[in-house]
Order: sequence, then C-alpha cells, then structure tokens
Amino acid sequence: MSAEPSRRGFLGAALGTAGVLAAGGGGYGVARATASASSPGGHAEPVPFYGEHQAGIATPAQDRLALAAFDVTSRDVQALRAMLGAWSAAAARMAAGEPVGPVETVPQAPPIDTGEALGLEPARLTVTVGFGPSLFDNRFGLAARRPAALVDLPAFPGDVLDPNRSGGDLCVQACSNDPQVTFHVIRNFARIARGTAVLRWTQLGFGRTSSTSSSQATPRNLMGFKDGTNNIKAENAEEVDRFVWVGGETDQVWMRGGSYLVVRRIRMLIESWDADYLADQENVFGRRKESGAPFTRAHEFDPVDLSKIPPDAHIRLAAPRANGGQKILRRGYSYTDGIDQVTGQLDAGLLFIAYQNDPRRQFVPIQQRLAANDALNEYIKHTGSGLFAVPPGVREVGDWFGKALFG
Amino acid sequence: MSAEPSRRGFLGAALGTAGVLAAGGGGYGVARATASASSPGGHAEPVPFYGEHQAGIATPAQDRLALAAFDVTSRDVQALRAMLGAWSAAAARMAAGEPVGPVETVPQAPPIDTGEALGLEPARLTVTVGFGPSLFDNRFGLAARRPAALVDLPAFPGDVLDPNRSGGDLCVQACSNDPQVTFHVIRNFARIARGTAVLRWTQLGFGRTSSTSSSQATPRNLMGFKDGTNNIKAENAEEVDRFVWVGGETDQVWMRGGSYLVVRRIRMLIESWDADYLADQENVFGRRKESGAPFTRAHEFDPVDLSKIPPDAHIRLAAPRANGGQKILRRGYSYTDGIDQVTGQLDAGLLFIAYQNDPRRQFVPIQQRLAANDALNEYIKHTGSGLFAVPPGVREVGDWFGKALFG
Repeated sequence: MSAEPSRRGFLGAALGTAGVLAAGGGGYGVARATASASSPGGHAEPVPFYGEHQAGIATPAQDRLALAAFDVTSRDVQALRAMLGAWSAAAARMAAGEPVGPVETVPQAPPIDTGEALGLEPARLTVTVGFGPSLFDNRFGLAARRPAALVDLPAFPGDVLDPNRSGGDLCVQACSNDPQVTFHVIRNFARIARGTAVLRWTQLGFGRTSSTSSSQATPRNLMGFKDGTNNIKAENAEEVDRFVWVGGETDQVWMRGGSYLVVRRIRMLIESWDADYLADQENVFGRRKESGAPFTRAHEFDPVDLSKIPPDAHIRLAAPRANGGQKILRRGYSYTDGIDQVTGQLDAGLLFIAYQNDPRRQFVPIQQRLAANDALNEYIKHTGSGLFAVPPGVREVGDWFGKALFG
Repeated sequence: MSAEPSRRGFLGAALGTAGVLAAGGGGYGVARATASASSPGGHAEPVPFYGEHQAGIATPAQDRLALAAFDVTSRDVQALRAMLGAWSAAAARMAAGEPVGPVETVPQAPPIDTGEALGLEPARLTVTVGFGPSLFDNRFGLAARRPAALVDLPAFPGDVLDPNRSGGDLCVQACSNDPQVTFHVIRNFARIARGTAVLRWTQLGFGRTSSTSSSQATPRNLMGFKDGTNNIKAENAEEVDRFVWVGGETDQVWMRGGSYLVVRRIRMLIESWDADYLADQENVFGRRKESGAPFTRAHEFDPVDLSKIPPDAHIRLAAPRANGGQKILRRGYSYTDGIDQVTGQLDAGLLFIAYQNDPRRQFVPIQQRLAANDALNEYIKHTGSGLFAVPPGVREVGDWFGKALFG
C-alpha cells in the first residue's frame, strides 16, 4: 500500500463506491443553487477552505455550530489517513456549496451525499478538525509526536464532567449561518468515517456568544449579558498571531500554523439565575445588564476600571491584566438541550470554545483562577470538556487535515 | 376575587413584582433595536399577534422552532387564568420585539425579562398556545367543555412513544427566524408559569420541512427529499378555511376560529437510511431525490400519477386522494438531538406538526393508513406525540389565550 492513498480512492474506499468519484475537481451535475429563498445564509461569499490556517478560527463567527467528537475504532493508520483525506475533500466541497458527491449515480448504490443541503447556500460554512490527546497513544505510532502543549486538562474545582460529553480522538467544528448546512457536515463526516471512527458526542449551538469581528455587535449570552466585548477580534492580526497561531516555539513542527481548541460545555442554572436580583446579576459580571457598560462607566466599550469591579466578578478575574496579559480567542455558542429529566429544569447554557497557541499559559491558568473565585460559579456547571490540537490549514488539493502529522 | 383578574395584575402576580408593570401598553425604556447585525431575522415586518386566529398556523413558516409542553401544577383555576393572561401580554410584547418587561427596574428585584433577546429583531416571531386533553379532567371544571374532536390519540402500529416527550396540559409553539428569540419565549413563559405550571418537555427545530407559502421553495427533510410539495399553502384561503379552521360544526363554541395541533416526534434511522440504495430511497417516497419530481414526471410540481407510484410509497398513501380528500396543514421542523447513548447513533429526524379542524377525519385516519403500510416505516420511529386544541386568536388587549374557554 502506498504511503499516501490516492485522493481518488479516499471517498470511494470510505463509501464503498470506488470509481464513482473524481475527488477534488469540479461539479457533479448537481447544480449549486444560485438563489434560494430557503437559505438563511443568503448570498454571502463562501469562506475559502484552503489556506495557511484552518478556517473557523479567525473567521468572523457564524450564527450556527455543530460540534462533534469522534473516536477512532480502526487500528489501521492507513484507514485513518484515508478518512482524513476524504474528510478534507468533502469539507472543501461543502465549503464551496457543493455536495460531498453525487446524489444520483446508479440506482443500486446509496447516494454519495445525503442530500439535505442540496440547493442551500454554503452560508459561510467552515469545517475545522482537531486531534485529541488520546489519539497520541500507541495505536498509530504517534506518541512521540504529541505536542507538549496538548496537555491532559487538569480537574478544575466544581467540574461535573460527563464522559459522554467529553474528550474524543478527533474533533470537528462545523459553523455556518444555516443549521441544516452545519448538521450536513457532521452527518456526512460520520458516514465517511464508517468502519474507521464513530461519533463520541455532538453538540449543536446557536447565536454568537462572543463577537469575533469588529463589525459584529456583541451578542448576549443566555444570562442576558453581552459577552465578548473584549474578545480578540479577527481583524487584529497582531493579537491573533500573538495569542492564537502556533509559531516556531512549538516542539512539534507539524503544529506550526495551527492552534489549540478548548471546548467546555457550561450549563447555566437558568432558574436560579432568573430569580436573582438585578444588582446581584450585575455584581457577578461586573457590567450593567442592559447597556453592557462596566461598573462606573457609561458605555459598553469604555475601558474597565478594575478597581471599581468586585474582586470576584467574572470580567475582573477573566481580564488579561489578571492573567499575566494572556488572552484567548473565544468562539462560543449558546445551547439549549431540552429539560434535565432529573430536575425538570432547562438544560441550557454555553458551549465555550476558545482558541490559543498554548493552553498551558492561557486556558488552564485562567480557568484555575475562575474556578477558584468566580462569583459566576454559583450559577454554572461545567459538564463537558475537551482539548484538541488543531493542525494548520489544508493548503491545496492533495493536502489534508494533519498530513504533516502522519507524514 | 373577580372573575377576570385585571391585566395589570397578571405579570405582577406571576413574577412577584406587582405594580412595576403596566401591561399591554407602550415601551419599557428598553429601546427596541432598529438595526442589528446580530439578528438573523433581519428587518422583516413583525407578525401581528392580535387577530381572529392565532398566528403561527397559517403564517408562512419561519426557520426556527421551540416547542414546549407544560403541566399545570396549581389546582386554582384563577391562577391558571392569570398565567394565560400573563402569557398573552408577554407574547404580544415579544412578537413586537419588546421585552416581556423591564430589565432594569430596581436593583433588589430580579429583572422582569431575562434579557437575552434585547437588541434582537422579533424575526417574525409567532407564539401559539394549545390545550391538551388532560386539561379537561376534573381539576378546573372543564370536563364539559372538552371538544369531541380533542380525542385521545389511538395507539398506532410501530409507536414507541416516550412519555417524557409526549402529552401535556398546555402546548406552546414559538417560531421565528432567530433561535435565541424563539428560546426566549419558552424560557420567559416557564418563568411566568412558576408556581402554576412546569415544563413537561421541549423540542427545538430548524429549517422548514414543509413549504407553507407559495413564495417558499420546498425545503428538504433530513432524508434529503423535498417535503411539503403538496402542502396546503397559507395563501390558499379556501383550503385553509376548509381544512384548518374550526367552524360552526364544532360542539364547543369556544373553539370557533381555532384549530387542532398534532405533534409527533419522528426519529429517522439516519444510518440505515444513508446505507440504502438510491432506487430504494426513491421508491419509499415515490419521488426522485434530486429533482423532487414524482415518478414518471419531470418536475417537482407536476401532477402525481398515483398509478405510477409503488402502492406502499409515502406520497401515495399520504395523498388526499387516498384519504377521502382530506388534507392537513403541515408545519414541521427538523431536529437533531445529538447521539442516542444506547446505540451510538444520531438522534435526528422530524418534529412533525400539523394543523387541522378535526383530527378524527384528518390526522388519525391518515396516520392509521401510513402506520399500517408506509414503506417509510422501516426508517422511522414515532417517539413523541401530542394533540392540542388551539383556541382562536387573542383579539385585542384585554383578551387572552382561551378566555372564552374559561369564561
């Protein structure tokens, strides 16, 4: 078997229909709709899939998220490589608004694409793939390639993590402005993975809880507060370079140009919060609820005077000045998952997602400080967790997610 | 106690902040945003809340759904009346893009509105309320007012109903083009209900699975097929009058101008479906997958020749000609609820919602025929169910959901 399976073989092997596809090239006869009243994404330009960095990190946040973690079930590293290659080819197509493959091929075979996104705009779709610490065990010979920054996250005070919402060998973050388009990615990735990897957990999200672009108004989280006022902005190349992209300092050259993704499923105790007094809610955050202005200031973007903020307020403890100047790029989404059958209360909150170039300097110490002191802790529970090494971008046709790791 | 609590008292009583509110009137000092980059709903005109019929039935389908069923825990019919009044006042405000009440009142009280929708457009929000069969027991003296058409749905072959996803004394359907706006309704209704009713189950949905307006392209369901081609269209007043609105034939005058809502949570066995051959998939529906054209026809909207459709195909069994000419107004949404922890497979499908003026003539016989014969049954499971009597519209300030029922 060659060290690098041919791209033509990727989807064919994964889907059991070798020869049907010519991956990477042009259309499949399924015309991409040029206008569709049913596409909430409208006619925004597609986000380029190929590039130095993976899309979906410094990309201004879209409105919808589908996140999935997979566990690799195969022990054959070639099967894993083939799957990652097929995922890359499929992601490139979907980001351009194309189906993964033809729906109508021959009657006596399954359609290559599941079809529910036919006629929908790509709606600024991005697909971002990362590798969890568990991938670097002895199954695939990758132990020596595990980056030092890809730590096992420590237990934080107050964690009540559900293993069915945590970890995973692989992570896929799909974001777009259309929930059907985002789900289509996870479903087709799961299908391509069949025989090689299985879904471990998934989470849908909506709304932006953090503004990641200067042109975006700061959205509100499900506690009703503006969230992300002082987030790193995608346009601020200096901060993105300094805090997000892995550079020459890494011990693993395959991670240069990549980043580290931390995901935390943070359930909000909605009913308790909603019964809390306005003054207490504002003391918890250190901001006014309606305007978003920090205490003693008039407007949302006025500089924070930390001396006027309660010592256990969230924005005081999370501020870069309280954390040695460290920042993270937050890219979280709200979630609502119905009712907790044990308590009868709403299971809703924040799927916290943050990108950074070294969680040992960034997420871990920030979260240790928050977990120990944050007034917000009374109203939240961390119920899921993951850390993933996100390799650099897929550069061109023929490249694929993590090719340098397996090279 | 007066037979009709004052509207001023509704929200105050429900929220424990009597006197803060002047319900029904103008703004609360929280300005409604006139432009917001963060609102996926854009600047569409709000859907009027007051009217002859409740909005959210013949309203062209919005893109997002939050459905909630409540159980009444109080035995005090006045508390139930007060809650329905407060719900009506709150729904009117939210449909107009206003918060339920002020966020900033006094520091030592909880905000009246939870705040997460501040600054968002109403995004064509509609709020539709219905009453389940269980409300008409002997708790509230309503037994004699139960409409004959509000039957206990029979067990259908293949049902695997989860009681935690079925039934309920009350049902609230919130639809808009913004998931944060739709969730805001359910959350604030639950808050207003505190002490009177509790959430029984909730379900989020996305995408339209049925086109309910002639100006809407037919969306695709999660099986990848166009769904709703021959649905009743909101603009077709004759069909809506004939099949949807309750008229003079009802045994309960309070239901005139109302309708009956059937909800079924239909899980799709995604993995089995995706492995099925194209020809089999098309035989199940009786349509081509890509074009949506019925068999032997070229285009989606070409008339169906039932003689060319397999006898167990879904569109043949569901067609009005197979059901004595009966039609229903479908208004369903796709759902994805992560992974079934028992099987590791995706829990995704259709939250089927249909409106009609007599389920005894419409949904029940249609579903009996489908449950017995539909080729689709191999790939779906009905996991939740409900039937609700949806009273006519709230006519004006001072009226409320079901006032004539309790009058």
